[in-house]
Amino acid sequence: MKFVTADLNGEVFVGLVDEVAGRILPLGKAAEKKDGRSDIPTTMQECIALGDSFIQKVISIQAWATNGEADELFLPLDEVKLMAPIPKPSKNIFCVGKNYAEHAIEMGNKDDIPEHILVFTKAPTTVIGHQETILHHQHLTKQLDYEGELAIIIGKKGRGISKEEALEYVFGYTIINDITARDLQFRHKQFFIGKSLDTTCPMGPWVVHSSSIENPNRLDIQTMVNGEIRQKSNSENFIFPIEEIISVLSQGMTLEPGDIIATGTPAGVGLGFHPPRYLQPGDAIEITVEQIGTLFNKMEK
Amino acid sequence: MKFVTADLNGEVFVGLVDEVAGRILPLGKAAEKKDGRSDIPTTMQECIALGDSFIQKVISIQAWATNGEADELFLPLDEVKLMAPIPKPSKNIFCVGKNYAEHAIEMGNKDDIPEHILVFTKAPTTVIGHQETILHHQHLTKQLDYEGELAIIIGKKGRGISKEEALEYVFGYTIINDITARDLQFRHKQFFIGKSLDTTCPMGPWVVHSSSIENPNRLDIQTMVNGEIRQKSNSENFIFPIEEIISVLSQGMTLEPGDIIATGTPAGVGLGFHPPRYLQPGDAIEITVEQIGTLFNKMEK
Repeated sequence: MKFVTADLNGEVFVGLVDEVAGRILPLGKAAEKKDGRSDIPTTMQECIALGDSFIQKVISIQAWATNGEADELFLPLDEVKLMAPIPKPSKNIFCVGKNYAEHAIEMGNKDDIPEHILVFTKAPTTVIGHQETILHHQHLTKQLDYEGELAIIIGKKGRGISKEEALEYVFGYTIINDITARDLQFRHKQFFIGKSLDTTCPMGPWVVHSSSIENPNRLDIQTMVNGEIRQKSNSENFIFPIEEIISVLSQGMTLEPGDIIATGTPAGVGLGFHPPRYLQPGDAIEITVEQIGTLFNKMEK
Repeated sequence: MKFVTADLNGEVFVGLVDEVAGRILPLGKAAEKKDGRSDIPTTMQECIALGDSFIQKVISIQAWATNGEADELFLPLDEVKLMAPIPKPSKNIFCVGKNYAEHAIEMGNKDDIPEHILVFTKAPTTVIGHQETILHHQHLTKQLDYEGELAIIIGKKGRGISKEEALEYVFGYTIINDITARDLQFRHKQFFIGKSLDTTCPMGPWVVHSSSIENPNRLDIQTMVNGEIRQKSNSENFIFPIEEIISVLSQGMTLEPGDIIATGTPAGVGLGFHPPRYLQPGDAIEITVEQIGTLFNKMEK
């Protein structure tokens, strides 16, 4: 199951993606036609907060829709504007830093491989959707860099979550480009400022429900800039696998439905090249994660 | 003008504090009695988002109430539960680190005095109100520390705000205790994890409107633990004054109404003593900021 937040002529809704047929089923309208009442909320956060009852409802809508009953409700994927799955997160995005050893080394040396999880955040104002434009902020930074990442969307509230039960707290997965102004990141010591320029968190194109991903710690991930492969790895190379990230983060801090955790980026960021290859106006960035999809964004010209 | 978010028997409202008489005027009810319609929202964030029209309304309610018309609406301060002014912020709290030179030195040495603003964040789940209990999280940390701070509440949306216009973007000021697990702060390198344990952001007791504070960069600040003075300084000792904090933060990141910025803590934190004096179960912490008030909280026993 793949869920989108989409906008059709200014009306925002949660839709179910039928990728093979290239179309989206608006879930609120489908529920209305099927059951005579629209009990599907219009925001992804509210849908996620409904917990298992939301998924059960979607499964029954999906089954009903296969017999052709919903055909006139489907919208062609290319006729709606995909927004970020969660366009306005209700808190900052949690980001794990240096979670692939080779990336930690390219950021410095072997001493940069963390012994303990390193977490910083990005402001909610950084979030944009698939195909939206990334501002270059050239008056502020000359070193804007891409970071392709698998991201976790939390499905239920919890504190002190054990590694064993961690995956039960996941609603689904999406892709994030954790765009970073390297000069600001280093100048201000704590990463926050260099990680929180407006539009520096492209997210999407959709959320894949956890039931559709067999092993999130074994997914290919690849970033291309202008068609050239820059990052290529697999989440099996995580220093801290997803269960550990969720467990450590939640030991003293309550996680809530709709929380977003970016899991870290592999080697191959612009800073890692000699000389560095930072993002330039007009650059096109494509991040592909196996079983999820491709997040595409272009830099402002 | 001092604004509270308060709870009377489960009903949450925004109130105006009459500190001399020790009472609160619920603004929604006052507007209803005065004008026949309750056009004051129930959350502080919504009130702030109304901008100047909210303040104009409050000024007219205040004038009307002085003639005794509202007397039966006032509630004794000690009969309502004060909540944090913004109990559920819509993003993480921005925190400036090491903004007093003497504190930077006690955290390490003179090399720790920052040349550029250092910013980290605390999760919204950390927020509690005046007189609420701070969890000690003893299974996670042995080094819980207090940090008394003046905090800014942003009043209107802006990006690229200049220092000259920065104070126009301030709605008001409150007090924050940026409680920190020092062991986690250092173990995880980036500060976020050590700064985001549940209940580690006591905030309040109220927000003082910016019109009531002549110079926010010249306010006495003091922290007492169990009646003993531990921190004593004045915001004139800021390395980065409020105008600069707002300007630097907003250069590439849009600030929004209701955003909260903690301005940093003076010398005298528990870590600065030899041996360190961390918070213990049952400790009482009082942070007083001139022209604002006193934020009081006790540690869980």
